[in-house]
Amino acid sequence: MVTIRTATDTDRDAIWKIFCEVGAPGDTYAFDPKISREDALAYWFRADTRTYVAEKDREIVGTYVLRPNQPGGGAHVANAAFMVAVHARGKGVGRAMGEHSLSEASCFGFRAMQFNFVVSTNESALRLWKQLKFKIVGTLPGAFRHPTKEYVDVYVMFRSLMDD
Amino acid sequence: MVTIRTATDTDRDAIWKIFCEVGAPGDTYAFDPKISREDALAYWFRADTRTYVAEKDREIVGTYVLRPNQPGGGAHVANAAFMVAVHARGKGVGRAMGEHSLSEASCFGFRAMQFNFVVSTNESALRLWKQLKFKIVGTLPGAFRHPTKEYVDVYVMFRSLMDD
Repeated sequence: MVTIRTATDTDRDAIWKIFCEVGAPGDTYAFDPKISREDALAYWFRADTRTYVAEKDREIVGTYVLRPNQPGGGAHVANAAFMVAVHARGKGVGRAMGEHSLSEASCFGFRAMQFNFVVSTNESALRLWKQLKFKIVGTLPGAFRHPTKEYVDVYVMFRSLMDD
Repeated sequence: MVTIRTATDTDRDAIWKIFCEVGAPGDTYAFDPKISREDALAYWFRADTRTYVAEKDREIVGTYVLRPNQPGGGAHVANAAFMVAVHARGKGVGRAMGEHSLSEASCFGFRAMQFNFVVSTNESALRLWKQLKFKIVGTLPGAFRHPTKEYVDVYVMFRSLMDD
């Protein structure tokens, strides 16, 4: 059973731990591998951002952020980013956070959600987002340097929130 | 004759003036219309960003920025953003800055350039980027709220720098 709630300052240690774990292999996200704890948490708790954590058996096993993908005339489209602790993968944590983010985004009045950078080799993410009705609306040729596969394509994914 | 050079602190007034002019109509860029001078200039002179100005007859008539579009595994793709003073439009300032940015990006070792948010109704921008060999690689449905045309599509545009 996964519970999702708004993150607080006391979650910062757990979030940073997941950040390091997820970022270290460098195979799914475009993170600066040398990012400091301070900069990472500042980004994850940015003023325009809502930050959530997923708990399972009282342990924080995932975190996600929700925010406008663009300011001004683009602020009706949400963006979200997700991280799941390595030992908690394959247990529905990502799906629970994905569904929660769509519901939250809809509540806050966003009309759509966009992912700017889904690495094409990240099959579990692609499968999940397709199941949650996201479509690939763009392909960025060779836009991610994978640690073992070299330059691989990246997808832009998009989902309306107006059809539900 | 347009000259392009690296921006300095003494260009900040001129850049802010162009920022306001370009942002005010709200029909081409996703800017926060209430952005402060301080925040706008902090964004335009961000640590990971190279900032340029275009001069014509000793007056600053345009400005652009060049930076990695993503950190880490995405940092080989450049992003750039351009603004031309209203009274200097249609005189090749945008094209001069566009060509300059491609040359600079190539010099700095970027492998490609990506624009994340080209509003589909911004015909002069689209024409210019197509002339400079950018391709539309993604379409974001209704992702920009135009002040008079309501929700219009936005293009993601991409150009390799390896074929030149």
